[in-house]
Order: sequence, then structure tokens, then C-alpha cells
Amino acid sequence: MKGLVYNGPRDVRVIEVPDPKIEKETDVLVRITATNICGSDLHMYEGRTSVETGKVLGHENLGQVIAVGKAVERVKTGDWVCLPFNIACGVCRNCERGMTHACLNANPGSAGAAYGYAEMGPYQGGQAELLRVPYADFNCLVLPPDAEEKQNDYVMLADIWPTGWHATELAGLQAGESVVIYGAGPVGLFAAYSARIKGASQIMVVDRHPDRLRLAEKIGAVPIDDRRDDPVEAVMKLTRGEGADKGCECVGWQCHDADGHEVPNETMNRLVRSVRPAGALGVVGVFVPQDPKAEDPLMKEGRIAFDFGLFFHKSLRLGSGQAPVKAYNRSLCRLIAAGRAQPSFLVSHELPLSQAPEAYGHFDARHDGWTKVVLKPAA
Amino acid sequence: MKGLVYNGPRDVRVIEVPDPKIEKETDVLVRITATNICGSDLHMYEGRTSVETGKVLGHENLGQVIAVGKAVERVKTGDWVCLPFNIACGVCRNCERGMTHACLNANPGSAGAAYGYAEMGPYQGGQAELLRVPYADFNCLVLPPDAEEKQNDYVMLADIWPTGWHATELAGLQAGESVVIYGAGPVGLFAAYSARIKGASQIMVVDRHPDRLRLAEKIGAVPIDDRRDDPVEAVMKLTRGEGADKGCECVGWQCHDADGHEVPNETMNRLVRSVRPAGALGVVGVFVPQDPKAEDPLMKEGRIAFDFGLFFHKSLRLGSGQAPVKAYNRSLCRLIAAGRAQPSFLVSHELPLSQAPEAYGHFDARHDGWTKVVLKPAA
Amino acid sequence: MKGLVYNGPRDVRVIEVPDPKIEKETDVLVRITATNICGSDLHMYEGRTSVETGKVLGHENLGQVIAVGKAVERVKTGDWVCLPFNIACGVCRNCERGMTHACLNANPGSAGAAYGYAEMGPYQGGQAELLRVPYADFNCLVLPPDAEEKQNDYVMLADIWPTGWHATELAGLQAGESVVIYGAGPVGLFAAYSARIKGASQIMVVDRHPDRLRLAEKIGAVPIDDRRDDPVEAVMKLTRGEGADKGCECVGWQCHDADGHEVPNETMNRLVRSVRPAGALGVVGVFVPQDPKAEDPLMKEGRIAFDFGLFFHKSLRLGSGQAPVKAYNRSLCRLIAAGRAQPSFLVSHELPLSQAPEAYGHFDARHDGWTKVVLKPAA
Amino acid sequence: MKGLVYNGPRDVRVIEVPDPKIEKETDVLVRITATNICGSDLHMYEGRTSVETGKVLGHENLGQVIAVGKAVERVKTGDWVCLPFNIACGVCRNCERGMTHACLNANPGSAGAAYGYAEMGPYQGGQAELLRVPYADFNCLVLPPDAEEKQNDYVMLADIWPTGWHATELAGLQAGESVVIYGAGPVGLFAAYSARIKGASQIMVVDRHPDRLRLAEKIGAVPIDDRRDDPVEAVMKLTRGEGADKGCECVGWQCHDADGHEVPNETMNRLVRSVRPAGALGVVGVFVPQDPKAEDPLMKEGRIAFDFGLFFHKSLRLGSGQAPVKAYNRSLCRLIAAGRAQPSFLVSHELPLSQAPEAYGHFDARHDGWTKVVLKPAA
Repeated sequence: MKGLVYNGPRDVRVIEVPDPKIEKETDVLVRITATNICGSDLHMYEGRTSVETGKVLGHENLGQVIAVGKAVERVKTGDWVCLPFNIACGVCRNCERGMTHACLNANPGSAGAAYGYAEMGPYQGGQAELLRVPYADFNCLVLPPDAEEKQNDYVMLADIWPTGWHATELAGLQAGESVVIYGAGPVGLFAAYSARIKGASQIMVVDRHPDRLRLAEKIGAVPIDDRRDDPVEAVMKLTRGEGADKGCECVGWQCHDADGHEVPNETMNRLVRSVRPAGALGVVGVFVPQDPKAEDPLMKEGRIAFDFGLFFHKSLRLGSGQAPVKAYNRSLCRLIAAGRAQPSFLVSHELPLSQAPEAYGHFDARHDGWTKVVLKPAA
Repeated sequence: MKGLVYNGPRDVRVIEVPDPKIEKETDVLVRITATNICGSDLHMYEGRTSVETGKVLGHENLGQVIAVGKAVERVKTGDWVCLPFNIACGVCRNCERGMTHACLNANPGSAGAAYGYAEMGPYQGGQAELLRVPYADFNCLVLPPDAEEKQNDYVMLADIWPTGWHATELAGLQAGESVVIYGAGPVGLFAAYSARIKGASQIMVVDRHPDRLRLAEKIGAVPIDDRRDDPVEAVMKLTRGEGADKGCECVGWQCHDADGHEVPNETMNRLVRSVRPAGALGVVGVFVPQDPKAEDPLMKEGRIAFDFGLFFHKSLRLGSGQAPVKAYNRSLCRLIAAGRAQPSFLVSHELPLSQAPEAYGHFDARHDGWTKVVLKPAA
Repeated sequence: MKGLVYNGPRDVRVIEVPDPKIEKETDVLVRITATNICGSDLHMYEGRTSVETGKVLGHENLGQVIAVGKAVERVKTGDWVCLPFNIACGVCRNCERGMTHACLNANPGSAGAAYGYAEMGPYQGGQAELLRVPYADFNCLVLPPDAEEKQNDYVMLADIWPTGWHATELAGLQAGESVVIYGAGPVGLFAAYSARIKGASQIMVVDRHPDRLRLAEKIGAVPIDDRRDDPVEAVMKLTRGEGADKGCECVGWQCHDADGHEVPNETMNRLVRSVRPAGALGVVGVFVPQDPKAEDPLMKEGRIAFDFGLFFHKSLRLGSGQAPVKAYNRSLCRLIAAGRAQPSFLVSHELPLSQAPEAYGHFDARHDGWTKVVLKPAA
Repeated sequence: MKGLVYNGPRDVRVIEVPDPKIEKETDVLVRITATNICGSDLHMYEGRTSVETGKVLGHENLGQVIAVGKAVERVKTGDWVCLPFNIACGVCRNCERGMTHACLNANPGSAGAAYGYAEMGPYQGGQAELLRVPYADFNCLVLPPDAEEKQNDYVMLADIWPTGWHATELAGLQAGESVVIYGAGPVGLFAAYSARIKGASQIMVVDRHPDRLRLAEKIGAVPIDDRRDDPVEAVMKLTRGEGADKGCECVGWQCHDADGHEVPNETMNRLVRSVRPAGALGVVGVFVPQDPKAEDPLMKEGRIAFDFGLFFHKSLRLGSGQAPVKAYNRSLCRLIAAGRAQPSFLVSHELPLSQAPEAYGHFDARHDGWTKVVLKPAA
């Protein structure tokens, strides 16, 4: 089959790769019809990870089941399914508590597995024609009858929307509260979209890309352009000097300052100053335990110079990490099915798999208007 | 009246100070019969804060009401009361949510007020014969009939036990879980004691003072001496390589390494490595927004070099800050009254107020056996 | 001043009554500019309670502060305020946990107090020109600058919207879930409105009054007319046989069947059958500990024949009781101020106080279109 | 193999039955070494259920794995395992939220399945030499190395301790609170034991069997004999007139009054009166949707005459239903392994399987001292 593989920094290619097979009785095979390029794919694309050459990328996957293992009971051939990016066993101590992002079995030696991702286990990704899905009865979200028609909505359930939602959950966002979100990439925009659905009274989004800030405004947020305004001051002004009730980090360690330098502690320390005493932060932008290529010397070993004194003084709380997609995808699916949510609003490009390499380039360069790319391997 | 005042670094004195008065209709006056020296008093004692000369110290106070303001309804003259160290108005946005540690009215311009403490508002402390208690109907915990007799137990409800309890609450400790606690000072020991009462399955306490480690063991914890063992390795060994479910920081920014140097990020980074994926941390050891006298250059401006990459990778959560004492003191009071808890186990010395300066010296020097001092101004 | 008083079954009158005064240092006086007639006023109006003749009714009150007691600090003369219907001391064991609906001090001998209501303490109501507000710093919600202009929105924060919101809170409604609401009176409609704001995927409302069902539909709910359809079957059909995730009771013991007879257990038992296993119910429709005038023999002593076997078999949960208004009114206020909510959508009539008796008659008779009456005593 | 089967009212027999087999790839077979007789087995024994003749009873099972299906990964031959009485698929909407007591797949047409129980699916019980365990990777609790030696402790994790624990969870019991428990059978005693471990300040247990009340006292509860004292008055006296913070129902619909008549609403209505305003109840005593043999006419159709007016007036909450054993068994297992809990304190008799029929008789008759029987089929 055709699949998009990593071939080195800023070099991904669509090549012929071996077809996946049912390897265990609990597997299914899915013919992929929609698969997104994720902002976190860019960490691999840019050569900032240890991902091996030849790995098929892609962890935001949707398609139709074409084969099922003997022990699979719930999922049937022909079902349309969306796959959480986390691969989870369903039976370990973390999975049984809903913490599928920290599955202890799917990626031995670590906690948490994923499709087509560096250090997340030996699983191929879904930017390809076919995908093997382990522990399928546990992992597959079987979609409603309108699945095929609303693919661009439902594919957002694999990662990007649940991840934005998770940011607001980690922050403990309640209806009626205000929230500031750093980052208006897809995750930040979905955090804002989630805050809107949950009844936030005020949503502020900090970024500097005009196309992204326009989208933020479109979904009801106040855009803050950090090239024009100090974002902490802007938040303070908008909240009568109180600070936002809650904050979300949707950028991660590769945060750039206005001059293009990476400043890994910038968003976290701005959040500490933007949020009111006894508030809380949700951090879903990725921070890594080490990055030898980081400009910042602390970040080489995974550290940031964190304003922990002020954090403590303000009695803040924070939650972090990858989203346990299964904790949210059924609920969000129902919002789509009921017509209450259309997460496809973010899609800027639908492309065949063959054009994926070009799309990676545009997305990585943050070219204006390349907000979210959905690949269509079956088209 | 007599009161212990700050007179400069390592210089506290018991002198004659003006008697407090009912200043507002909502005040009461309390004759103090038991008042503790707290580990956080030592930050002031050592000259590491901006506390003004002449301030009466003391925020762990218990005594008998001798006068009540006209608007006071609930509290009566003659009541035995224990005062939460936080002074809270009871009516602001934070107080009405139970976040009395972040009261927005009692210390204008900041969040949170306290008796006799640097930058916590214009309130005198209770290491004195008398204490003025603002917003008394809200702040006083009226004690059961056995109050006088069990003063050494009930006085622990002012701060030290609720603060230890708060560490376990912030960490979300549940019955059956394991927990590692860094620091076996009074706060750490009360975190361990709280974990015991809540049904933790395994309690590990890290420190290096033999008298404190012995007390930890006595209340059912496994003591870990960090001069002898690497505490992270010790925790891993004790938890079959999984890490503790939860962790508590009960040391703060003045953490010393084996050579006596302050290493403000040591406990936090050890905690990140000691706790299992998807675990959580409660931080009640004090970190300050700036400390010009800190050895560590980052800490001068309130920062620590924090292993945030690993923290994120493990999907950890953390909560921090001072304890909202009122959230816990009624429940803990009932445990004492019912005979299910005897927090006075920690008391090493009961002394008249006149001996307070000497006691500060011993406690600050961590002299063996000076675990907790209760002053008796009325004795 | 003028005030509307109870004069016997179906007899309320606007008469001259004594002006209220500052009785305690913690009181304020409010000039009432908007005060609603509540569905629960009808229990008194119909003579089904023990309310005394001459009592001024009215517990949904908004106005401007004209005098403050000496101990009042937060509230100022001139402030526009909305008063939670619950009168709460702010300092008892229940109030300090946010359970202001069960205040132990404001109505000695019982739990919970209110303005102008049977057995809720010696407090006059606000269907009058002036109102005395006890424990004012705790009880007053000080409104934003647009208070006067948006009175018809903000007055809904006194009771009716928080009560509808409470129904969804007691049921534990989460974004993405489905909910069935029995009753489309003001409380039921506000439960539906709350469910909409919280991101429910599906909202079903059962009633039989066409004007109410139209309003339900207008705010995004599926109306179910129980004269035409069996509501349990309708819910099952709409939820693919699963049942609703959550349910709300917004009718109370005076539930009527199609023939006009009171059937106090009807809504509860229908809810048990309408909600899916492991679901939950929020009950804010009023049930009383005894009603000698009830038709139903069990209800005379406050009992219902409850399908508890099925309730248990389905592992259901339920929460009940009056709303702790302060738990929600700040958040909902912010939604109004931010333009995200306009609860005045429900207002059908704005009338001077003098027309209140007539309005009681229409509202009690459920005359078409008499959804919600706001009285304007200052007009 | 030998198994104990139902043969009609008050007639159980140990006979030869077919050996179970691996039927699906996800099954394991367990050689049973400890299996309890449960109070809920008595409903079947007494002929009050629809259980079919020939069914092997027994849902509190522990033993050693002797065969595993091909798709089983986590559980190994030779593992000592304790089986939650609920059989759960692990992948349905309820299981993925931890509500394994309401599994939607294991017992099609209903919610929730169990071993050897009426209307809980086609599964044989474990009062036998061998047991087939479906969805084994999900359902088996693999025990620590001391499993064999502490069998009488660990077998309590199958049902009886988690069920008692669940009562306290449903009631939301927090450390420092008081709780009243109706029923001192095994479930009630384990509710009391759980309350003790969770740090309750006061535990009151109502029953009338002296041996049970003695055991309640032994684990730190205050026994209340309802033949001697009105239990509501006793609770009020013990709580200074406030009522207990929380309450647990551990009797169920077959509650008897002093004359031996069944009074299905007695415990629930007493609880409503025993618990303080804004309190909560956990109900794990079984109530059934219908019982044609009930004396009480309402109960024939699963109803009770419930004091719902007072329940509402006091703003109470209640949770009900079978325990989701997996939600608790790992934590409780760790308490046993750590030596912090010894639930075998309840065991009164260890008997070979052959003596099971006699044991049923004694237990059903509540003969003095027959508190809990563990059968040893492998002995």
C-alpha cells in the first residue's frame, strides 16, 4: 500500500510500504479515508525527535473496518470508526481508571502509546491506505450513520478536538468562567471551541498569526496579538485587573519569541501572570524530557526556568500531558451527530495522500491559511 | 501586654506592646493560651522576608474569647476558639468558594491574609497574651467542651495539621494509594499523619534528621534518609518500580543539600521522578516570588529550573499554595474530639512566652528533639 | 410602603405595610425595582401552606441599596444588587461549605431561610417597595454597570435560573450528554436553558401547555407533549432505546394528570423509567413533608409510592432540594454581562405592583402566555 | 466437577455438573480455592427470585488460573486471581467509565452481569471446583505473592468488601464525618470497616443480632440495637441533635420489623430521618423491580412508600445499586498486602464445598455466630 514515511529532517515521502495484517485476535484493519496532519507531527518532521526513518506517520485517523480478529466482538466489518491517537490495552491499572494516555501495556517500558509517533511504540501511522488497530474493541469509536458524509468533522475526534477539550478539563474550566489560551494553532483553537461549548463567559486567545487570530474571533474568542500587545497586560485589562479564571497552554516547548528564537518557558510564565489567585492551568502543548537540539540550555535536559514562586504565591494548580481521547470522544461525537458542533470549521485543505509532503512543508512554515490539512488516502 | 516581636535577623524579643482592641463590630478579642512556633516563622526569623521590626509574630493560635464586637452573633464571650492562620472576610468571590487562603478583602492588593506574618496584611500575631480576630463569626472555630484540656491537640488545627492535610488533598490522595512525602518537619509529619487517617496503603517520608525520621516511622511511615539513600531509587524499590501514586512537597524553597547549600528545585524534581505516570503532587512547602538573598541565581527572582519536560511526559498534575484551613478544621476537630486523632504527638516542648526567643533559636537550628514548640502565654 | 400580602387562599392584596428598617449592623435596605412572581408562590396562593395572613410575599428580588448597617463593608449605598432567595448567615457549618440553602442560623429550628415564604423564617418578601436584607455582605450579589438596563435579565438570578441550573447540577449533567426534563414551567425552561449553555447534546422537555412547549423548542429542546405521547416511550425513541443520560424533575408534588388530579409520584416514576442505567436525577420541583390537603393518601404525610426497586436495579442516583443560589449566581451573572445569556427571554409580562393580584390569578390558572411576570414596584 | 446448584426454595445441593471450558479466546479457567456464601444468595435460596433449577451459585470467588484463551495477554496460567462478582466486557460505554456494574454487553437486554445469579446472565457460579471467567484480562484481579496464604482476606475483594465500601462512596463519606449504617450483616459491617479506614469520626451501626452488633463494636462502631432503642432517636442523641452526616442502607427490601414482618420502606425512611440536612445516603441493600411474593402490596410491584417530602425538604442526595467492584478492588487489595486491613476478621466458618447446603441453612436462619462462610472446594 501507499504510506507517508519519515525519511529525515523536513523530508517525508509517500512510498510503497507493506500492508498491515491482523497480528492478534484483538486487532482490526481499517481502510483509512481521512487522516490529518497534526502540529505534533512537525516535531518529527523538523528532526527534533528520535523517530526512525521509514516509519509511517499519522495518528489522527478515520476509516472503515475491513477485517476483524477472532476475539473482536463489538466492532464489525463495515463499521465506520475513528481511532483515538492513544493506543491503549483497556485492562491495565491506568486504562481501567480512564487514563488511556498512560497505558502501561501498549508501549512496554513507557506509559502511553500512539500510531506513527516517536517513542510511542512500534505502531505504524495512518497517513496510508490501511491501518492496523490493536485492542480494537476497546480503541475503536464506532461512528453514527452519518459518518461517511461528516468525515471531516468526525476525524477531529482522533486527537485535535479531544486535546483542546482536555486543556479545558485540566484547567477545570466551568460554565461562566473566563479563560486565556496561549496558542491559536489547531489545539488552541479547539480549546477555545471547547470553552465556548462549555459555556465560558470570556475566551481570550493569544497568538500572532493573523489567520489564526481571525479564526479565534470567529468562534467567539477575543484575539490578542502578542506582537502588538503584552498579552498579560491585555488579559488583565479585559478582566478588570483580576486575571483570567483559568488558562491553557497550547504551544509547547518550541514556543518562539518575536525574533524567532525558541523560549520554552515563555507561555508558562505568562500564564502564571495571566491567571488569578487560586486559578488553574491546563497544559497540552508538548514539553519533552530532553531536546539536545534546543537553543535554550536548560531545555536541552528538559527543564524550564519556571516562576514557581509566583505560582505558589497565587495558589495555582496545573495539569499536563496528552489527552485520554476515550474520556471525551463519545460525548463530542454526540455533539457532532446532534448538529451542535461542526469541528470541520478548522479544515483549510483536503488533499490526496500524494500531496502530503507538500502539505507538511506549508503547514510547518505556518503559511497563511494552512490551518488544518485532511488527507484522503482512499480518494 | 507581652508579645514576641521581630527585631531583626535571628533576633526576636518578648516586650511590652499595646493591647489589641475591638476595632470593628465584627471583631472579637481572644486571650491566647496556646500558640505554636511554625516552621514558616523561621523564614522571618532568618531575615529572609520583608517583615517589619516590631511586628508581633504567631499565626497558630488558640484561646478563650474575652470580648465580642456588636455585630458578632455566633461566637460568645467565654468560647474556646482555635483561629485559622488565614484571616478571611467570608464574603469575597474566593471565600464564598472556600478559598479562604486567597481572600480578596482581608489584605488589599494581595490575595490572602494572616496573623503576624510578612506581607500578609496589617495583623498582629498571637505569640502574645491577647489577639484581635477580625471577621470573627467567620474565622473562629468554636471548640468542643474538652477544649481546655486538649489544647495541645486543638492548637494544631490553626495551621500545621490542616497544612499537612492540604498537601494530601492537593495531591488527590485516595484510600489504598501510596504516597511519598519530602520533608519530615511538622508539615511533612502531619501530611504523613493525614495520609494514615485517610487510609493510604504506603507512606514514605524523606528527610535526614534522625529524630524526625523516627517520628515518621512511629506514625506508620517508611522513613527514607536521603544522606544514606537516593530517595528516588528508594521510592522506586519500595513501589516495585512503579513510583508512588502521589507526592507531597513539605520543604519549600530553602531546601538544603547534604552540604548545607540551598537547592530550591531539588525536592520538586525528585518528586517528578518519584511519582508514577498520571500521578499528582501537592506542594505546601513555601516558594516565594523573589528572594534577593537566595544563593541560587534563578531563585533570586522566584524561579526554579524545573523538570517540566518529564512532568509533562508523565502527565502529572500539581496543586500548590497555602491551606484554606477552614476547609478542613471542623472535620479534623471532630477526629480529635472523638479520640480518633491526637496531633499533640508532635509537641516536643511546652514553654512560657518568655522562653520563646530561646525556642526560636533551637528550632531554627533544627536541634535534635525540637520538633514542635507550644508557647503558653497565659501560664 | 406598599406591599403585596397574603390574605387567604387565592386572595393576595397590595396594601400599606410598615417600612422595613436596618435591624442589625449587618443589614442593608434595598429599594426594589424588579421582583418576580414565582411558581412556588402559587403553593401559598392556593392555600396549600401554613403561611400567615399579612405576610409580604416575594423572593425573587432586585433593586438598589439605599441604606447600609454599620458592619457592612462590601456593599455600598447605590449598588444595584440581586438577592438570592435563600437568606444565609455565611458562617454556619453548611454555609461555609456553600450549602446556603441549608443555613443553620437564619431560620432557627429548621435548615434554610427565604424572603416572604411559608416556614422559611420571619422575613418579609420583596413584592413591595423596600426590602430588608440580612447578612448583606454575604447575601448581596452586586451587579455590573449595566444592571439597571438589564434588570429583567439579572432578576432571574434571584431564584429561577439558579434553580433550573441546580437541577442540571444535581443530575451531574456533562457536556455531550442527553437530558430529559419533566416540566416546562419557568424552572423547567431554565433547566433546559442551562443544559443548552453547558453543551448538552440533546434536551427533551415534557409538558402539556402549548405555550411552554413552544418556548422549550425555541431554546433548542425537543418538546414532548404528554397528552399526545407517552413521555417515557418518546424519550426511549429519541435515545435509540438507551434512555436519557440524566433527568430533571421540575414539577413537584402538585403534578397533575391529564384529568386534573394530583399524582405526586408521576414525574419521579416516569423519570426512573426515562433515564438509562447508572444515570442520575436532579429534583428541584418542590415536595413537602406533609400536605393534609393532598388528594393522594400517602402524600398527606409527605410520602410517594416510589419505584425504588427499578431505581436500585438501574443503579441510579438522585439529588434534591432548593438551590444554593450563591453557588451559581456569580457565574450566571457573568454570562449575562458578557452577552452570552439573556434569561429575560422568559418574561411575558412587566407590571406595576398594583396589578400583582390579577397577575397571580392568571399565572395560577396557567393562562396561555402567562409564562413569567416581573413586577416593577418603583415604576 | 462438583458444584452447588439451586434445586428449589431452601434446597441447594452439591452435585456433579459439567466442567466449564474455554469458550472464547478471551476466557480463562480458574480452579476455585475460596468462595463465599453471600447474603444475596439467600434471596435465591429462599425462592424469592426467578433463578433456574440447576444453576451453580456463587459470585465471591478466588482461585488459581489453570487455562487461558488465545487472546488473553495479561493473565497467566498459575496466577492467583480474585474475580469481581460483576462480569464486565470492558469496552461498552458504561465499562469505559468504570461502571462495570452496568455493563451493557455481558448480559444482553439488561445492564450488569454476574456469576451464578438470577437474571444476571448465563454464567455459572463459583461454588464449585472450576469457574469460567469471561473477558479475563479485564475482569481478573491478579493477586500479590501472598495470595494463597491470605485467601480469606483476598476473597473478600470479590464482592462483600467493595460493596460495603461502595455504600460509603455513594454516600460521599469524607474523613472526619459521622455515618449511620443500617444493617450489620456482612455488607453493613464492611461499610463500617470502610468508614473506619477512611477516617470517619463516628460510626453508628443499627441492627438487632447481638453477634453482629458485637462485631460492629469491635471494629470501632457504636452499636445501636433497634429492639431496645429507637434508632433515629439514638442517632440524634449521639450527634447532638444534628443527625449523621451520611447514611448507608445495607439491608434491602427484605427488611424485617421486630415481629418478623417485611417492611421494605423501614430502613430508607429511618435513614431520611437520621441524616442531617444536605447529607447523603448510599444504598447497597438490594431492592427489586418486582416481588410477587412480597407481603407489602406496594413492594409486589417494586415500590416503597418513601418519605420523599422530608427527603426533599432536607436537600438530601442518594446513590444506589450494585458495586462496580473493579473501581475499588486494586486499592483494597493493596491495603491487605500492606497489612493495613484484614477483612477476614468477618469469617466465622471455613467449610468444604460438601457442607455448603448445611451452611446455607444456618446462614439463612441467622443462627448466632454464622457471620460469614468461606467454602474451600479444593480442600
